[in-house]
Amino acid sequence: MGSSRPDSGLYPADRLDLAAAAAAEAGLAALLLTPGPDLRYLTGYDAHQLERLTCLTVPAAGSDAGRPFLIVPRLELPAAQASGAGDLGLELIPWDETDDPYALVAKRLGPAAGRVGLSDRMWALMVLAFRDALPGAEQVLASAALRGLRMRKNPAEVAALREAGEAIDRVHARVPGWLRAGRTERQVAADIADAILEEGHASVDFTIVASGPNAASPHHDVSDRVLQRGDAVVVDIGGTMPSGYCSDCTRTYVIGTPPPEFAAYYQVLKDAQHAACAAVRPGVTAEAVDAAARNPITAAGYGEYFVHRTGHGIGLEVHEDPYIVSGNTEPLRPGMAFSIEPGIYPGPHGARIEDIVVCTEQGCERLNNASRELVCVGDR
Amino acid sequence: MGSSRPDSGLYPADRLDLAAAAAAEAGLAALLLTPGPDLRYLTGYDAHQLERLTCLTVPAAGSDAGRPFLIVPRLELPAAQASGAGDLGLELIPWDETDDPYALVAKRLGPAAGRVGLSDRMWALMVLAFRDALPGAEQVLASAALRGLRMRKNPAEVAALREAGEAIDRVHARVPGWLRAGRTERQVAADIADAILEEGHASVDFTIVASGPNAASPHHDVSDRVLQRGDAVVVDIGGTMPSGYCSDCTRTYVIGTPPPEFAAYYQVLKDAQHAACAAVRPGVTAEAVDAAARNPITAAGYGEYFVHRTGHGIGLEVHEDPYIVSGNTEPLRPGMAFSIEPGIYPGPHGARIEDIVVCTEQGCERLNNASRELVCVGDR
Repeated sequence: MGSSRPDSGLYPADRLDLAAAAAAEAGLAALLLTPGPDLRYLTGYDAHQLERLTCLTVPAAGSDAGRPFLIVPRLELPAAQASGAGDLGLELIPWDETDDPYALVAKRLGPAAGRVGLSDRMWALMVLAFRDALPGAEQVLASAALRGLRMRKNPAEVAALREAGEAIDRVHARVPGWLRAGRTERQVAADIADAILEEGHASVDFTIVASGPNAASPHHDVSDRVLQRGDAVVVDIGGTMPSGYCSDCTRTYVIGTPPPEFAAYYQVLKDAQHAACAAVRPGVTAEAVDAAARNPITAAGYGEYFVHRTGHGIGLEVHEDPYIVSGNTEPLRPGMAFSIEPGIYPGPHGARIEDIVVCTEQGCERLNNASRELVCVGDR
Repeated sequence: MGSSRPDSGLYPADRLDLAAAAAAEAGLAALLLTPGPDLRYLTGYDAHQLERLTCLTVPAAGSDAGRPFLIVPRLELPAAQASGAGDLGLELIPWDETDDPYALVAKRLGPAAGRVGLSDRMWALMVLAFRDALPGAEQVLASAALRGLRMRKNPAEVAALREAGEAIDRVHARVPGWLRAGRTERQVAADIADAILEEGHASVDFTIVASGPNAASPHHDVSDRVLQRGDAVVVDIGGTMPSGYCSDCTRTYVIGTPPPEFAAYYQVLKDAQHAACAAVRPGVTAEAVDAAARNPITAAGYGEYFVHRTGHGIGLEVHEDPYIVSGNTEPLRPGMAFSIEPGIYPGPHGARIEDIVVCTEQGCERLNNASRELVCVGDR
């Protein structure tokens, strides 16, 4: 992790300034960012999440607390330096095993810290330690300031997501060869995990292989169930590329001949997924895209079996803003990247189709392009 | 994840009662535990950590809020049921995409919640949402109540850690075959990652291969550096077993003939690591074990090059209480499991030796038993 100089297109040097400005605009005095996607987004540093505090502090533009600084445990200093974070004009401040790193941050920020934005995934351990070290500060989420930046991907980020999409498409192209009656979900998932790495990902994030009745459970992971002829198999897979950007793509396969009613609702699902993609363009709200998927499914009588939101944003996190869900009135803007993944789960089988898409000036670019036709395998 | 009934020895049914009693004793009204080691420890449920709230609420013994309950997103309900958590007399409460799960918890706990203990790794997203949903509650860490339980491993947990130790020992036994001048750290790490899985782990947690000057950076991970004759190579590796329990073991190898001064300080290190293991017994403090490793290293003139604590607890987390560090006056008790891993990093090379040990009534049981003699490879 974090041992190569970040790509300048993915990590432009002005991000820290943009973040400081966004913090000021959100009424925050500073951002406090522990290891995770916010830190990586701003600096390229893919730091270890550890109980020892690593924290990027970004004082708001115009604040007295000066330039951003990165607190790191002394034994992480070489990794932080190697990440190139220091080349961004960022002061690196190592702390020793018997120091209080929270007090170090508090001293720099001063007693009148005002509102501070914490990275959304900061551990409670650190949230409460900062609460005690900065008793005058009100804690809010850093995403209040950063979500606007992180949601709109720049061309280098879109290229990284496109590369991730192509990699997972290549995995899906190989899936039919591994689906055979008699094999277990777990065996298929192991083949997929190998292929996720072979096709260029740095890590495997999930390998959902949900067959037969398991396909009716949207978040079934994997089991020792033996695949049988006639099974629908939901294969929802993804990984993280060396760039840090994630893939996520679902296709539903059938082994042999599908259950009689399956083909009918698969067609409804495919049309609904297409309709939602077609609805994507700047200015359309996230919830309108959800409705574009949900309405035709409901109209066809399957509404009660579509039990989850239509999608989630994706980038350095596999789930991030914007969420494509009823109630989210966020208007789409160019550069927003998210999944469109309606599902129909009537039981004892089910189906889901998922692509990552990017909102462009013209409408929608799909980053996954594996066939969405119903693929019947193992019957030849 | 979480799809098989937890082993009854690892997840005894009385844990929830013990946790409720510990909460009461710590002056807490309830524990709020999101996916992670606390939730797994109490229920066996290895839940997904997601932005959607999953939360085990454990009201303190004697509280009006009744029995523990588990809030889960509706689409995680099948996984939660499959985990066996429901067999523990735990109410499972699913919530729908448009519900407010924090309000659900708050309603159950009532307005006068008092002090609530949050799992140490709960995301800030959830910490702040609970802060707002329970405005009358003071947030503290759940470890205040749970650390005493989790630190002292029961015999089934010690057996699980022993199994993990044996698995990683088998990987170390194979490492000399992969260390050759001309290969990169990353290539060696890939071999190690495969072996970690082959030897019985469910996942790879870290594969640190730090060669030559990188060996002088205690938390160097892996790079494209090419191994050279005369390199010392610190190999610090670990994974998580299907049981959920972790391995972590470091050995330092030399390719060919070591640097002249290396053999001298390696011997000091080996003796210091042995002295710290020998110091382990009930009643001795954690910091006394740190001192037992540190004093001989300091006496030999290498004190300034031992830049980290001596060790960390291990169990369902690879780093947990108790920490073996100056200032920690916690007395050791039987069942406590932790690493003993002194290091000497004078540069341009370094060394570390790490074993997991368990404090027993009689003293210390080492769970790693790969040879600690200096292994010189690739010179034959």
